[in-house]
Amino acid sequence: MSYGATFPAWRAAAGPAWDAYTRHAFVAGLGRGDLPRVAYLHYLRQDYVFLVHFSRAWALAATKCDNIEDMRLCAATLHALIDDEMRLHVATCAAEGLDEATLFATQEAPATLAYTRYVLDAGHAGDLLDLLAALAPCVLGYGEIGARLLAEAGETPYRDWIETYGGPGYQDLCTRVGGLIDGAVARRLGPGMQDSPRWASLCDRFATATRLEVGFWDMGLRP
Amino acid sequence: MSYGATFPAWRAAAGPAWDAYTRHAFVAGLGRGDLPRVAYLHYLRQDYVFLVHFSRAWALAATKCDNIEDMRLCAATLHALIDDEMRLHVATCAAEGLDEATLFATQEAPATLAYTRYVLDAGHAGDLLDLLAALAPCVLGYGEIGARLLAEAGETPYRDWIETYGGPGYQDLCTRVGGLIDGAVARRLGPGMQDSPRWASLCDRFATATRLEVGFWDMGLRP
Amino acid sequence: MSYGATFPAWRAAAGPAWDAYTRHAFVAGLGRGDLPRVAYLHYLRQDYVFLVHFSRAWALAATKCDNIEDMRLCAATLHALIDDEMRLHVATCAAEGLDEATLFATQEAPATLAYTRYVLDAGHAGDLLDLLAALAPCVLGYGEIGARLLAEAGETPYRDWIETYGGPGYQDLCTRVGGLIDGAVARRLGPGMQDSPRWASLCDRFATATRLEVGFWDMGLRP
Amino acid sequence: MSYGATFPAWRAAAGPAWDAYTRHAFVAGLGRGDLPRVAYLHYLRQDYVFLVHFSRAWALAATKCDNIEDMRLCAATLHALIDDEMRLHVATCAAEGLDEATLFATQEAPATLAYTRYVLDAGHAGDLLDLLAALAPCVLGYGEIGARLLAEAGETPYRDWIETYGGPGYQDLCTRVGGLIDGAVARRLGPGMQDSPRWASLCDRFATATRLEVGFWDMGLRP
Repeated sequence: MSYGATFPAWRAAAGPAWDAYTRHAFVAGLGRGDLPRVAYLHYLRQDYVFLVHFSRAWALAATKCDNIEDMRLCAATLHALIDDEMRLHVATCAAEGLDEATLFATQEAPATLAYTRYVLDAGHAGDLLDLLAALAPCVLGYGEIGARLLAEAGETPYRDWIETYGGPGYQDLCTRVGGLIDGAVARRLGPGMQDSPRWASLCDRFATATRLEVGFWDMGLRP
Repeated sequence: MSYGATFPAWRAAAGPAWDAYTRHAFVAGLGRGDLPRVAYLHYLRQDYVFLVHFSRAWALAATKCDNIEDMRLCAATLHALIDDEMRLHVATCAAEGLDEATLFATQEAPATLAYTRYVLDAGHAGDLLDLLAALAPCVLGYGEIGARLLAEAGETPYRDWIETYGGPGYQDLCTRVGGLIDGAVARRLGPGMQDSPRWASLCDRFATATRLEVGFWDMGLRP
Repeated sequence: MSYGATFPAWRAAAGPAWDAYTRHAFVAGLGRGDLPRVAYLHYLRQDYVFLVHFSRAWALAATKCDNIEDMRLCAATLHALIDDEMRLHVATCAAEGLDEATLFATQEAPATLAYTRYVLDAGHAGDLLDLLAALAPCVLGYGEIGARLLAEAGETPYRDWIETYGGPGYQDLCTRVGGLIDGAVARRLGPGMQDSPRWASLCDRFATATRLEVGFWDMGLRP
Repeated sequence: MSYGATFPAWRAAAGPAWDAYTRHAFVAGLGRGDLPRVAYLHYLRQDYVFLVHFSRAWALAATKCDNIEDMRLCAATLHALIDDEMRLHVATCAAEGLDEATLFATQEAPATLAYTRYVLDAGHAGDLLDLLAALAPCVLGYGEIGARLLAEAGETPYRDWIETYGGPGYQDLCTRVGGLIDGAVARRLGPGMQDSPRWASLCDRFATATRLEVGFWDMGLRP
């Protein structure tokens, strides 16, 4: 999955951390189906709270756009997160007897706090592009994982997770977010993006968020 | 129109500024139909840019909520603004030969800058309730004006404006925003809101935004 | 006065608005001494409130730096504004019977609201460089005006104003702020700053703030 | 140490987490002098980066004040952090051959990211009081630890650390910050602070930051 021109360059610059994230033992367990249910539910509760703050970050992005198309895409992504993607979490947890208010009140693990607040701060410290570099590993990495597992995975109780991220709705969102990033790069760095004095710090944002994804999966495996 | 319990109290505290806004000569001209077309189009272009920044303020509100229902309502309001309400502006200006990119690039009048940036700063300086007090005069005042004109106005070339704000979609939004405000008051000030040490500064936020509305209509009359 | 390499380029791009600001009738009146006292005091009260929000903007800048030297300079500028520059306003108004709490509570003119909140929003919408482009006209323009009036003006009751901005303390601050801007440009745009896709929008930030300065002087002349 | 009226109430509400923080094994090691040097230096590097972001949080606080005295205190605290407190870190690390630019570039541990960005986000999500509740455990807890160790500790190589936080300069800062908090509470919650509907969420902010302090000391012990 390339999702545009910038994402593959950031992914390459992240080095082995990218595979540590997208081929993590937690991901393998989702695909093979042998991830313990208790780990999955622990992850899902933290991921719900993660998505609350990730939605806040997309809302923040909508405040930092310089054209109406980008604003509409950020607003649509916010909508997709809090009205669609979270449905998976709410429905699965409801089947376990947890209602949404309880989910919302979940005490955040340090890994959840570190990742979500780092992304929000990237937006407050910098411009739209700094924020997008911190948002990209989660949005597009889940797209990459979902597409791969959809193609490869056999029987698994986690098929609804795989279809949420591997399915056409989420894949289309990834393509549009990739285009948003490419446009933000073009309007700020120009054609030779890798020669920009900002390139290293953007790669660093992306790599830090990628490491925080690894920490999030690690946390998921320790219910 | 009461739209809940807090709005009428803020409106009363704003004193004569409220009528100066909601019964402004510009409003009367919309209802009677004798507002000069050139003034209307001048207003509409500035109001488009106003709505861009007002949408940013609703996105900011979504970053400042403490429960998921409020986040969903802020996201829905953002959506209503940039995907529905702006359609009136885009369609009317398109009929005059102005496309949306040109609209977006409109140079902002000082009255537009003052109002929009004051609202955004209310959110950055304070919490959700400070922001809502600055957002309320526009959202709910337009609801009040729209409902009155829909009931009272006869033939007027500005019927599409009146129906946009007086119609059931916008009125329902106002009712929901009124409930959002009442909930935010309950969770921050408690039952005796007018005895809270914050009450005066919230009324001041509301009154300042109301005065800035008057300045915005004044600007509209000077194309 | 050049105060570095970026400021002269932004000033040139602002065109005639720059002279409309720095050679405004209000400025001429300060130098010749025939500015009505009532206009000066009206300006000074609004300028005190302006400086409150301008200090907030420098504090915001301190949250957006990527190195410790820049943070220290932003903190030092914040200190210079609220502990030194405001002393002129407080002392002059005290001699007129206005204490600082009354000054702080001054109702802001629309021109004050528009300018200060525009600058703050430039920081929230963008990165440090976007904010600096909006801060530059005031900081460095006052340095330019102060230096010129100090060299040219004869007898005038506004000598303390002229010495505040023309004196070595403020001029040194301007030189350091000019260096801060040049560094921020180097680390974000690289050597060919005027070829960057961001150049036009930075010039637009600077030009908008310059126009808002003109509006602020206009307001000063209408007590 | 009480540092005003609000801090003791928040501290009591934090329960056993407060002692887990202020009587952590790392603290005991500082007092007895048997904390391994390698742990101390590891902590000091992370704490330098912590202070960079903590300074940003105090700068953010300066943007959220509603009176000039509070702004001056936030600006003075920012100055104390980046011009005084960090000197301990810079001088100690310089003696180990690490210059300040290297310190600034330290890769942040997850515990550092989680704590600092949580505090910054408390400010962006809420008002000044929400931010102060998240800032308080570090500022005032270090004051409490420093005062106790200064009174109790014997010979220890970490005497400069103890004197930095137990000495009169830092203790005076704590007293002033305690007063800032009490004033912010009075102006937002009124006299019966513990009956305010906001009380629980403010205690939760304080308790979360306290738990993140425990995590920070834990990280210090794992160089």
